[in-house]
Amino acid sequence: MTDSAESLLLKIKEQGDLVRKLKAAKESNEKIQEEVSKLLALKAQLNTEDAGPQKFTLKTPKGTRDYNPQQMSIRNDVLQKIITVFKRHGAECIDTPVFELKEVLTGKYGEDSKLIYDLKDQGGEILSLRYDLTVPLARYLAMNKITNLKRYHIAKVYRRDNPAMTRGRYREFYQCDFDIAGAYDPMVPDAECLKVVTEILDTLNIGQYVLKINHRRLLDGMFEACGVPADKFRATCSTVDKLDKSPWDEVRTEMINEKGVTPEAADKIGEYVRLNGGTELAEKLLKDEKLSKTKAAVEGLEGIKLLLEYCALFGIKDKILFDLSLARGLDYYTGVIYEAVLTQPIKIGNEEQTVGSIAGGGRYDNLVGMFDSKHKQVPCVGVSVGVERVFSVLEAKLAAGDIAVRTSDIDVYVASAQKNFLEERIKVCAELWNAGIKTEQSYKKNPKMLNQLQHCEENGIPLAVVLGQSELERGVVKIRNIVSRQEDEVPRDSLVQELKTRISALNKEINGTS
Amino acid sequence: MTDSAESLLLKIKEQGDLVRKLKAAKESNEKIQEEVSKLLALKAQLNTEDAGPQKFTLKTPKGTRDYNPQQMSIRNDVLQKIITVFKRHGAECIDTPVFELKEVLTGKYGEDSKLIYDLKDQGGEILSLRYDLTVPLARYLAMNKITNLKRYHIAKVYRRDNPAMTRGRYREFYQCDFDIAGAYDPMVPDAECLKVVTEILDTLNIGQYVLKINHRRLLDGMFEACGVPADKFRATCSTVDKLDKSPWDEVRTEMINEKGVTPEAADKIGEYVRLNGGTELAEKLLKDEKLSKTKAAVEGLEGIKLLLEYCALFGIKDKILFDLSLARGLDYYTGVIYEAVLTQPIKIGNEEQTVGSIAGGGRYDNLVGMFDSKHKQVPCVGVSVGVERVFSVLEAKLAAGDIAVRTSDIDVYVASAQKNFLEERIKVCAELWNAGIKTEQSYKKNPKMLNQLQHCEENGIPLAVVLGQSELERGVVKIRNIVSRQEDEVPRDSLVQELKTRISALNKEINGTS
Repeated sequence: MTDSAESLLLKIKEQGDLVRKLKAAKESNEKIQEEVSKLLALKAQLNTEDAGPQKFTLKTPKGTRDYNPQQMSIRNDVLQKIITVFKRHGAECIDTPVFELKEVLTGKYGEDSKLIYDLKDQGGEILSLRYDLTVPLARYLAMNKITNLKRYHIAKVYRRDNPAMTRGRYREFYQCDFDIAGAYDPMVPDAECLKVVTEILDTLNIGQYVLKINHRRLLDGMFEACGVPADKFRATCSTVDKLDKSPWDEVRTEMINEKGVTPEAADKIGEYVRLNGGTELAEKLLKDEKLSKTKAAVEGLEGIKLLLEYCALFGIKDKILFDLSLARGLDYYTGVIYEAVLTQPIKIGNEEQTVGSIAGGGRYDNLVGMFDSKHKQVPCVGVSVGVERVFSVLEAKLAAGDIAVRTSDIDVYVASAQKNFLEERIKVCAELWNAGIKTEQSYKKNPKMLNQLQHCEENGIPLAVVLGQSELERGVVKIRNIVSRQEDEVPRDSLVQELKTRISALNKEINGTS
Repeated sequence: MTDSAESLLLKIKEQGDLVRKLKAAKESNEKIQEEVSKLLALKAQLNTEDAGPQKFTLKTPKGTRDYNPQQMSIRNDVLQKIITVFKRHGAECIDTPVFELKEVLTGKYGEDSKLIYDLKDQGGEILSLRYDLTVPLARYLAMNKITNLKRYHIAKVYRRDNPAMTRGRYREFYQCDFDIAGAYDPMVPDAECLKVVTEILDTLNIGQYVLKINHRRLLDGMFEACGVPADKFRATCSTVDKLDKSPWDEVRTEMINEKGVTPEAADKIGEYVRLNGGTELAEKLLKDEKLSKTKAAVEGLEGIKLLLEYCALFGIKDKILFDLSLARGLDYYTGVIYEAVLTQPIKIGNEEQTVGSIAGGGRYDNLVGMFDSKHKQVPCVGVSVGVERVFSVLEAKLAAGDIAVRTSDIDVYVASAQKNFLEERIKVCAELWNAGIKTEQSYKKNPKMLNQLQHCEENGIPLAVVLGQSELERGVVKIRNIVSRQEDEVPRDSLVQELKTRISALNKEINGTS
């Protein structure tokens, strides 16, 4: 507590004593009230004092951030584009709570489980914040016994990871998920997921990309063929997953020293994981001495071949790369896996920023069954778009002046240069709002004309209605075009219609449509 | 663990022993691999067994729920209508993290603080889930030293309250907030908040309502005039707040027995709080013997008078009721307070549902200062719309068959009655998606015609493209109108253009525009 607060407390005590004394002495009500109001004033002061000064740094929690209006404008624009693609493919929307029973998340994420946020035990259920949108979807499907669903879900997820916020890595971040649940023919929904990713990346227009694909069955078959014991498949797979960040030598060392893979097996793996290509590679590997004898590898390769065939029919084959080094971290994948990577750094102002992986996903046929008491499986395949990296690229472009955004859509500002026109402005605003026109005015009684016009310029408001005594007396109002500064008088009665015509003309100008 | 899982473990152990024996005996690689794959198959089986059967009830956390596609459709529609109103008034959008440093929330909610969700201390910062959107806004303004902002914020908030889910009371629920921050002339932004509420309730079209208004300064002045000691104002105010649910007698008893108000003071309060009306009541009370001598009461009454004047100019005065029993629970209000209440039960099927309070808010001029090291104040006024009650009314109407919703926007289904047409369907889908047409197809290789048409009917898809060998050979495709069942052949080359024309015609039909 501050010194001033302490002295204030003392004053309050003294004043309180005085009031009590007056009351005990049955002094006149007026006199008592007078002292009571002094006491109240002191207490009001204390209420303000009491809270501060701020004892803690004013910040958002580590790894999180606020979105200001510019950032929200970018975010809403990006999300809207993604939703448009999801809806174009007929996906329905669902939502789940931000937290789940802790048990729902247990045993789904392997090593990464340590990154889950738990809620404090305040009596009742033990809860954790969702780590992704995939496990909640599986829980939702199992709980409601749904066997077919094409859904999208756009929401924040939570990971107690080391944040790298300038690169778009947060502890609270958006995922945009598209998943197809249901028992269908092989690779048909899987190929559509890849098509969805290409449509999203094309519409976001953030540079060239490649869609890497691989298959968990092929990875398992490859490990088996190289002599890795089955109980080390998942651990070896996690190590292969590091190949996008570390050179093969380091990955090899980790395999041998930490995962207990023999040097011979590691070297054999090393030969496979440097391979990438298209259908011809899948066909070559189907004839590979070791892989062709491994059931899992053959299954994986046949899957990849079929997927590539459908991708060709979808017209996206030039964007797909079959890459044996792609492994993906999560445990629950069972079939095809994929990842979209931007292939060029993005130019922001005079600097370049590397974005890397921007979407990923795969098939997980056993996850829903983990929630069903009879292990009834619902095969699923899906993709998750990592929009935070897109946001951070666009925000950097905004900061560098490469792009501009408007944070409000106001079309008309109701202004007046004269005093005592607030009442008239209120009436005009109400009329325009009731007509659905996006309208704003100053909250001051007597704002300066210059300030009002400046507000229009700063906020990109195209039109102003300027109210004045002489015009009102003649039954007209002025409409001002903020950019051209031209002013026209229109009859007060036809103001709404006139504004609508002008707004619609301005919108056509902007959109370039007729 | 189930019996089958135990017997599986035994089999795995035996098979493992066999493999080890073969290896020790340096048997041929082929023979070893054969037994290894059997072992792998058993282990794969175990992975599925291992997770279950489900040891816990599959549910969402207490007081929370999933939104299925129908519910999401309703939710998105309601939120979109609200956003349209907020934007019409020029509000910018911001967002804040779902959790805050616990200290940010401390001391802001009075008795309700016990309802805050805390996160577990996993090392690092101590965090709590947000309880409303108002305190995060105040933190945001103070942290960024923003003195003027008109913003909206639509997000979920969290309260460990007793849920009443059928009536739309949840522990995780949406708030839709509109606030105006900045030092302006009295009651101008306050009146706009009321105008915003009327526009929202009118556009949601959920029945007649009244907007109750009161003023914290008037309440304080009233308590003072009735002889309540200043340190009991807030507690007395909380008790008055219960008048919407409890009769006066009960409230009076609580005041006397629990809050230490004298019976005489309580009776005087009782006379005031039964008053409600309009400007004439404010004028009458300004002449009231007791209130007219209390500075706070006079300030509050003058404020109410001015507010009513602006409401008349906004054309919403018939919806406003000045009601001295309105108190509002939260501590941080300092000026005008208001609450929108539906005045009629809503008819759902053959039943009626009472909704009650649906929006509320007020002025809080001291909250931002609590976060500023120099107590720099930013006066604020705002309103929060409680959309969960709207959702639950509309969901009940949906369940009763009073309304219908579509959960996907698909315009075209690509179908085929013939076998081996998947490739052709994929190519047509890609073409339509690339043209921006909302398109779907079956994920089966050879779906039945009847199932495909049924899918269209069930999902309200208006058009189907029907592919067939004979048509393709003639360079045409069939377009089928699902409702009328009429089929027309169109040239394959002009399919996209033809579909766009038909979709646009159908949309005009639905929207009734020309």
